[in-house]
Amino acid sequence: MKTDIQIAQEAEMLPVKEVAAVYGITEDDLELYGKYKAKLTDELWEKVKDRPDGKLVLVTAINPTPAGEGKTTTSVGLGDALKRLGKKTMIALREPSLGPCFGIKGGAAGGGYAQVVPMEDLNLHFTGDFHAITSANNLLAALLDNHIQQGNALGIDTRQILWKRCLDMNDRVLRNVVVGLGAKADGVVREDHFVITVASEIMAILCLASDMDDLKERLGRIIVAYNYAGEPVTAADLHAVGSMAALLKDAIKPNIIQTLEHTGALVHGGPFANIAHGCNSVRATKTALKLADIVVTEAGFGADLGAEKFLDIKCRKAGLKPDAVVLVATVRALKYNGGVPKNELGTENLEALRKGIVNLEKHIENIHKYHVPVVVTLNSFTSDTEAEYAFIKQFCEEKGCEFALSEVWAKGGEGGEALAQKVITTLETKESHYEALYPDEMSLKDKIRTVATEIYGADGVSYAPAAEKALARIEEMGFGNFPVCMAKTQYSLSDDQTKLGRPAGFTVNVRDVYVSAGAGFVVVLTGAIMTMPGLPKKPAAEGIDVNAEGVITGLF
Amino acid sequence: MKTDIQIAQEAEMLPVKEVAAVYGITEDDLELYGKYKAKLTDELWEKVKDRPDGKLVLVTAINPTPAGEGKTTTSVGLGDALKRLGKKTMIALREPSLGPCFGIKGGAAGGGYAQVVPMEDLNLHFTGDFHAITSANNLLAALLDNHIQQGNALGIDTRQILWKRCLDMNDRVLRNVVVGLGAKADGVVREDHFVITVASEIMAILCLASDMDDLKERLGRIIVAYNYAGEPVTAADLHAVGSMAALLKDAIKPNIIQTLEHTGALVHGGPFANIAHGCNSVRATKTALKLADIVVTEAGFGADLGAEKFLDIKCRKAGLKPDAVVLVATVRALKYNGGVPKNELGTENLEALRKGIVNLEKHIENIHKYHVPVVVTLNSFTSDTEAEYAFIKQFCEEKGCEFALSEVWAKGGEGGEALAQKVITTLETKESHYEALYPDEMSLKDKIRTVATEIYGADGVSYAPAAEKALARIEEMGFGNFPVCMAKTQYSLSDDQTKLGRPAGFTVNVRDVYVSAGAGFVVVLTGAIMTMPGLPKKPAAEGIDVNAEGVITGLF
Repeated sequence: MKTDIQIAQEAEMLPVKEVAAVYGITEDDLELYGKYKAKLTDELWEKVKDRPDGKLVLVTAINPTPAGEGKTTTSVGLGDALKRLGKKTMIALREPSLGPCFGIKGGAAGGGYAQVVPMEDLNLHFTGDFHAITSANNLLAALLDNHIQQGNALGIDTRQILWKRCLDMNDRVLRNVVVGLGAKADGVVREDHFVITVASEIMAILCLASDMDDLKERLGRIIVAYNYAGEPVTAADLHAVGSMAALLKDAIKPNIIQTLEHTGALVHGGPFANIAHGCNSVRATKTALKLADIVVTEAGFGADLGAEKFLDIKCRKAGLKPDAVVLVATVRALKYNGGVPKNELGTENLEALRKGIVNLEKHIENIHKYHVPVVVTLNSFTSDTEAEYAFIKQFCEEKGCEFALSEVWAKGGEGGEALAQKVITTLETKESHYEALYPDEMSLKDKIRTVATEIYGADGVSYAPAAEKALARIEEMGFGNFPVCMAKTQYSLSDDQTKLGRPAGFTVNVRDVYVSAGAGFVVVLTGAIMTMPGLPKKPAAEGIDVNAEGVITGLF
Repeated sequence: MKTDIQIAQEAEMLPVKEVAAVYGITEDDLELYGKYKAKLTDELWEKVKDRPDGKLVLVTAINPTPAGEGKTTTSVGLGDALKRLGKKTMIALREPSLGPCFGIKGGAAGGGYAQVVPMEDLNLHFTGDFHAITSANNLLAALLDNHIQQGNALGIDTRQILWKRCLDMNDRVLRNVVVGLGAKADGVVREDHFVITVASEIMAILCLASDMDDLKERLGRIIVAYNYAGEPVTAADLHAVGSMAALLKDAIKPNIIQTLEHTGALVHGGPFANIAHGCNSVRATKTALKLADIVVTEAGFGADLGAEKFLDIKCRKAGLKPDAVVLVATVRALKYNGGVPKNELGTENLEALRKGIVNLEKHIENIHKYHVPVVVTLNSFTSDTEAEYAFIKQFCEEKGCEFALSEVWAKGGEGGEALAQKVITTLETKESHYEALYPDEMSLKDKIRTVATEIYGADGVSYAPAAEKALARIEEMGFGNFPVCMAKTQYSLSDDQTKLGRPAGFTVNVRDVYVSAGAGFVVVLTGAIMTMPGLPKKPAAEGIDVNAEGVITGLF
């Protein structure tokens, strides 16, 4: 069987200017990065911004399991299938992070015959957006420590510094460090922390900013520390905004590449889906809606994190109106949710399926709370059986959802035609009356309670003392009208990753809360959230190579 | 008066494909990064590599002073002037580092009407080469610490780790850090250090590698640590080579941009000129020599560091044969060398000039030791007088050098025609019999002594015990045939930065020595060398901005 990278490398790509031309994008609207990647100019946005929007379809999934769901693969395959059925379609995805490429997870270009290409470029440096974010993040950190070194006129309390350095790398030893050791000229000693670049608030800001002015305002609002009087110190106070924005000048422009079947894909931004909102950039999604009749996008992790944030943060803040949600599941993952161990997922087991399908059920109910129609799709595996399909199909139809199998991994767009047909039917016959789950005016605690009870199915919420204190402080600072950004395990609807299926009778425990004032949301931490991954015993990096002709192998 | 960035932004750039076409480079030979930047493909190199070489001209300078010399400005202006005189000319320069842009020094695109453009892009992320190097450097560090975390099968002694993390940022608090704090999963605690990206050995490797295979061999030879038995542990031992090379796949390709007068400039690589060799990439220089009749290149700091390394490391290792050296001085800098304080440099002072010109004299003598003809140029300032010019002109002619004034800062290529004419005369009438200063077979100590006595004018060399020990170990490991890479203050011919002019009666003190096994040289440390700069009281970053249209201001 061919690997993803082999399939990608055998693909005959079209020059990206030809891919773009299909959407009316001229060569002047593009800033090329080689022949197969480009950024879209600001001038293009000015030309198209007053056009009517196409339809917006979100691809999300049940809670992730070790069995794998294939959300990006489905998004790409659905886009190709819609194009095959004659619809002018564009895909809007997140950019992969370098760290996981060298660790366990690998890249994020989709899989099999449903991939975006060039996959090596996308998974490595792409157009440099993440490097620009890393630079801006670390410039702010350097200016902060330099301010302290040069007299600390702002009275920054070195025990209350919030801003962390970042690297786009899985590097566990950087989680907790001490900086500033040495002599007087080497800075003030303090504890510091590195996060992976996708966890930087600048990543979230870049993805939510509507334009350069908005980007600069958001950057200026970033709270980097508190001073000795307990007041917030911002990036604007450090005069860091202009130079950070200069570093991000190109990074805010959406990137265009293509699928294996030459469908246009805007791949731009990639914030975490726990401490951030987990969606590609607003600018990319909005641009795609002006260029295509149907836009397929995705959000991180399962629907309880990704779709909730897409609907309650991104759509709310950007004024987007989603028209349909595609919910991805696999027979294997549903059986895993029903208690089947990983090595027995290949055997038909209707009993386990019945037990595990409650996870899917809850996600369907959740999306319906936003008044958006749902289409369920099964990313098919060869071990799946007809009886299992039939059971799931009937279940979905009883829930009022369209249902279709997806075979895009094996067959590309052709394997997604059944799903694409259901999506088209849904868009044509079911109207979306999208509404966010809670209003801006609700108190932060009520917002948290609403998400916990309505989406997770919790009985209630408990707060650690630090969280209570932080919430009061954040409302006092005037950020009570922000939406909440829940940082929770992705593996369970609850905040306990061992609780599969549809947990009930549990309380969500909020450990701490902080405000991302630039991004514009309040991060609610339930449990420990890893913002700097580590490398495994045998890192993927050890298997990656490039030959004399520049051909890369071992990337997945 | 217009600032450099204003002049740059008012320039009418040609599309880079038109600039390239003049050299016979087709659009297929280019990988575009926007309209005005591109990388040269490997295929282009294959097409041109058997052509005869053009003439190679190195631009270097007297020891730098606070008065400023203008080496890059002269290189750019000379290139433009040669083109005006009908010569097919290409310029080969180093890429600027982000750190200094936000600190004191600013960018490195030349100045006035002798600049390469787009200057903002060049000074910020350019084509991402430095980010790729940062990533490769830090991937190796992460793999190293992960190896220790996962059982340390290689027996790496955490007290003898040589490999440092890096960032392309001036960030003093990262000079000395402790990493790995926290719990068991957060790694093994140890002292660590960050250097600025240009100080990474990978930067030197990238600039000396002839192709991908050579790059990989060099990466594999990097010594990252010693094990408990005292034996070197390499990047190859950590299985890091393939993935590092994959990260550098595009970074090894030369970049092409243009001067304000549309002369082609290959701007590629930028290693430090103290702990590394301070020259742009071998690949860029060699490519330029195949595409143009005259190639103008430069080397870092003054001739005692930059030219010595260009001639003894880069030319030796790459098989390059320089045809002429242009030595840049200014009246102000020569008077400064003669003891005039900085605020009095604007007054005519022939006595100080006579006293200070010995610095120029020594550099001329030094270049002649390599049997390469020298042209001296004065980068003119409005405060210079005719009498001062006449004195210097006569001095140079008595030394057997051509001499010309250069007014390229104010007038662009037109202001460099007199210099260009002297360069052409030199190339046509004086033959270069380039020979490196010392043979490979000489012992490391003899090489150090040769550079110290012949180039610096020292009486001899003294070694700290650590240096003696390290030299013995390095020769034992089989690296005795490497050239030496002297890390010395750039402000004096001696290792004492307060000694201006032409110091005599001094000894060079070698503090420590280490081998850059991948780059292929032995670094000899005299005094403390700063590999991670800090930000000043008022960083340049505070004055940089970008407006809604993406126009950057405050970069210099």
